[in-house]
Amino acid sequence: MTPPSRAVIIFCKVNGIDYTERKVDISKREHLTPAFAEINPMKQLPAIVDGNFKLFESHSILIYLACAFPGVADHWYPADHFKRSKIHSVLYWHHSNLCRAAADEAEKFLVSSLSEIESFWLKGDWPFLLGGNQPSIADLSLVCELIQLKVIGSIQESSAVD
Amino acid sequence: MTPPSRAVIIFCKVNGIDYTERKVDISKREHLTPAFAEINPMKQLPAIVDGNFKLFESHSILIYLACAFPGVADHWYPADHFKRSKIHSVLYWHHSNLCRAAADEAEKFLVSSLSEIESFWLKGDWPFLLGGNQPSIADLSLVCELIQLKVIGSIQESSAVD
Repeated sequence: MTPPSRAVIIFCKVNGIDYTERKVDISKREHLTPAFAEINPMKQLPAIVDGNFKLFESHSILIYLACAFPGVADHWYPADHFKRSKIHSVLYWHHSNLCRAAADEAEKFLVSSLSEIESFWLKGDWPFLLGGNQPSIADLSLVCELIQLKVIGSIQESSAVD
Repeated sequence: MTPPSRAVIIFCKVNGIDYTERKVDISKREHLTPAFAEINPMKQLPAIVDGNFKLFESHSILIYLACAFPGVADHWYPADHFKRSKIHSVLYWHHSNLCRAAADEAEKFLVSSLSEIESFWLKGDWPFLLGGNQPSIADLSLVCELIQLKVIGSIQESSAVD
């Protein structure tokens, strides 16, 4: 399961949003089938269907879910206009830098992105990106990406030992 | 001037948002100065300052401006939750695909991205990405990127002729 899909599923679970998971096996090229193109013509994962509404790109899905389901706590995607702007800023920055680092394995990008997370986004005494003691969708998305990098790192390390 | 900076400036001009332009000359490495780091510690353009509020990443800036200035017409960033989700989806897709194509000059990415714009985003009789006859911030951002590619294309073409 890819980090963006994992972020969407964790978000639903944590917020008690009812969903049915449909696995799309990329190794079997199921994302290229006409059936999946009905859901997402861009042939990328994740994608959701809510009634007649179809949506793709994990960040837009997280924002949609946070707004569409009244049970979602405000800290995930605050109504406050300034906080919301900071979340957009993190998510777009994440897209430009960290995703590219993960995709291309460009060590240069990765090292500078991780150091920027430490020195800028997480500066101060708070454990979360926007400060405060509760996570936003930006924290969730970033954590899923970082866990993936850690998993890849462990695999590379253990195969180096082998 | 980079396409993302151009999109922000056009947006301000079209919507009558008062601003003072501060040029940051990348060729002179002005984006790496401590003075600019005060505005944007990530050292990227564009960045804005509105009162005490600082923000970077052009898409988050466009969303911020659309929400913060009451004179901005609804079509730029519709209040409707579903339309707004589609805009986020286009903007994140744009970030993943078209920006990477522009940055890496990866022809493969570029050709498939442009054909996806034609066949999916612009399908139907409407001239704009979400349908309808008025542009959104997603149209503006995409157009600025495409104009840049056209400019680069023309330069390459004319130097090939020379």
